[in-house]
Amino acid sequence: MHIHGQYFHTIWADELCREVMIIDQQKLPFQINIKKLKTFDDAFRAIADMEVRGAPLIGVTAAFGIWLGLCHYPEQDSSQIKLADYLDGLVSKMKTARPTAINLAYAVDRLADHLRCETEPDMMRQLAYEQALKLKDEELACSSSIGDFGCQLIETLSLKKQGQPVNILTHCNAGWLACIDWGTALAPVYKAHLKGIAVHVWVDETRPRNQGSKLTAFELLNEGVPHTVIADNTGGHLMQHGLVDLVLVGSDRTTLKGDVCNKIGTYLKALAAFDNQIPFYAALPVSSIDFSIYDGLKEIPIETRHADELKFAEGKSGKTQLIPDGSPALNLGFDVTPARLITGLITEQGIVEANEKEIIKLKTF
Amino acid sequence: MHIHGQYFHTIWADELCREVMIIDQQKLPFQINIKKLKTFDDAFRAIADMEVRGAPLIGVTAAFGIWLGLCHYPEQDSSQIKLADYLDGLVSKMKTARPTAINLAYAVDRLADHLRCETEPDMMRQLAYEQALKLKDEELACSSSIGDFGCQLIETLSLKKQGQPVNILTHCNAGWLACIDWGTALAPVYKAHLKGIAVHVWVDETRPRNQGSKLTAFELLNEGVPHTVIADNTGGHLMQHGLVDLVLVGSDRTTLKGDVCNKIGTYLKALAAFDNQIPFYAALPVSSIDFSIYDGLKEIPIETRHADELKFAEGKSGKTQLIPDGSPALNLGFDVTPARLITGLITEQGIVEANEKEIIKLKTF
Repeated sequence: MHIHGQYFHTIWADELCREVMIIDQQKLPFQINIKKLKTFDDAFRAIADMEVRGAPLIGVTAAFGIWLGLCHYPEQDSSQIKLADYLDGLVSKMKTARPTAINLAYAVDRLADHLRCETEPDMMRQLAYEQALKLKDEELACSSSIGDFGCQLIETLSLKKQGQPVNILTHCNAGWLACIDWGTALAPVYKAHLKGIAVHVWVDETRPRNQGSKLTAFELLNEGVPHTVIADNTGGHLMQHGLVDLVLVGSDRTTLKGDVCNKIGTYLKALAAFDNQIPFYAALPVSSIDFSIYDGLKEIPIETRHADELKFAEGKSGKTQLIPDGSPALNLGFDVTPARLITGLITEQGIVEANEKEIIKLKTF
Repeated sequence: MHIHGQYFHTIWADELCREVMIIDQQKLPFQINIKKLKTFDDAFRAIADMEVRGAPLIGVTAAFGIWLGLCHYPEQDSSQIKLADYLDGLVSKMKTARPTAINLAYAVDRLADHLRCETEPDMMRQLAYEQALKLKDEELACSSSIGDFGCQLIETLSLKKQGQPVNILTHCNAGWLACIDWGTALAPVYKAHLKGIAVHVWVDETRPRNQGSKLTAFELLNEGVPHTVIADNTGGHLMQHGLVDLVLVGSDRTTLKGDVCNKIGTYLKALAAFDNQIPFYAALPVSSIDFSIYDGLKEIPIETRHADELKFAEGKSGKTQLIPDGSPALNLGFDVTPARLITGLITEQGIVEANEKEIIKLKTF
């Protein structure tokens, strides 16, 4: 995708120089900082400090991190440790970078399973690089496919509106910065825009971390997609007044029943969409569906994050305090939208209804 | 009410010195700035620049402003203008301080009607002072009465919870800083707290102006009421998990049908309360009911405010930009919650259901 007209992936590697490049997302949108990762620890920190974020991107960064770790396998050292033990050490440590990110553990375990068949350091390193690239390609293809399926929805709405812009509301950032290209919730928007379908996106600022006003707005601005940032409080009013045609959000975890766990505030928008008979879709890769759980409200633990994220607003000129000293604050990261409020799930395998009968049909590998 | 243990009204006058004191609400909670108004223009600016806010407080400030204006009637001047014309000038100008504040025009017109019977400058000035004080007393009594009626609701919930804290969610600031004492939505909370009923308030930060995190939190902190500030996105999740027993909000304008126009985002909380069968009440003086309109969604115009309020967060260390240059933002001030989502209206005359049959019974003077 684009930043100031230049084409970027969110992560890319230089095999010869044994380096991985990322866009430091903590500085966006006010600083475009391309960061070079040269060691396993660099990659670990990039994930832990949220310089990279979003399940697909975290997975790919972790895979490249293992490769960087293997690039520094201390072969010549007399106190040589066994290659298999060395790999296990990298794998165990990487999983702790974001302990709640289920995809991270999954990506790292899958990679390790492939690598364990190799006993030569050079071969293992080479395979790690290939597998990391393959994972990156898979994530890209997955987002692209979600985009194609979702684009059909937008196209249908556009026909109904006789070419008037389709107004899409989104919450948080489920765009290319959370993936490799395209994104999940934003993928259909980009595909529609490229096809010349008129779209306009209402961007929830997404307090307290403002991923909407900082990342989604930045993405849309750089792709030339018409958009308007709004306070999280605003979506209901817009829906009451016919100013929203479609709600598109991402999902961190989806249950077998079709409950969607996503950034806190998603549930409120789903209620408003339901109350105003506006289609509400979650866009997600099948890998983020947790087939082992059913009732999202009862079974998904919700991360409590540091209260300072809410107490302070962080922007271009630094931080400023919004809450009086002495007032406590609670900062919950996610909420669960019950399946009954969801029109459908947009996956790389197609669009399905948010119920067990449909979800169970999705193929997992 | 209290600031750092000291008792305050939001406005008070010194008749001898011909001064009016206000608490500059733009600096709260980080600076307690008591501002002296000595002229009509001082009072006008205090209203226009939102140093005072909230319909009851604006009305009282305007009345004291007219008094200050009359204190400076140029009696001895050879180019003397007629007293009645001078009064009319003050009245017309004051109404323009916040053009959309219906209560402001109402308070000023009512005062002027009283004053026109006087022809002597000293008598008119004296009467203006008395009337301003009377209006202040009326507003105080009104809030106190809303508090008493609302407190009964909290008491009933407290009995059901066997003394466990009653969790109340509120949006924006409808506390004593918007009134004289007590407030509207917060009045029942203060009354309950004083009666020794255990309460805990979830304070929506209320983007983009953060009246919740800045003013409501400040009020509750200073009254010693347990509370927690949350992002506006959070209330739905708390309600899903049984952590909210009651939602209490204010109202800027209520229709004959019972639709409530209040700070943007109120509708989303009402939807969540309805979805989780949690009582949702709006607390308001009967004077804020507009008996001339029926359908709030169709008939109430919604104020669009400056986008910079959303683009920048303003806190203790000043302003910081949250949205990339080039991304547009839309900042709507209010939304309308349909009567069907509202359990009841708490007024100074008692609690009524949000429907025409009940609302029409309320007495207006």
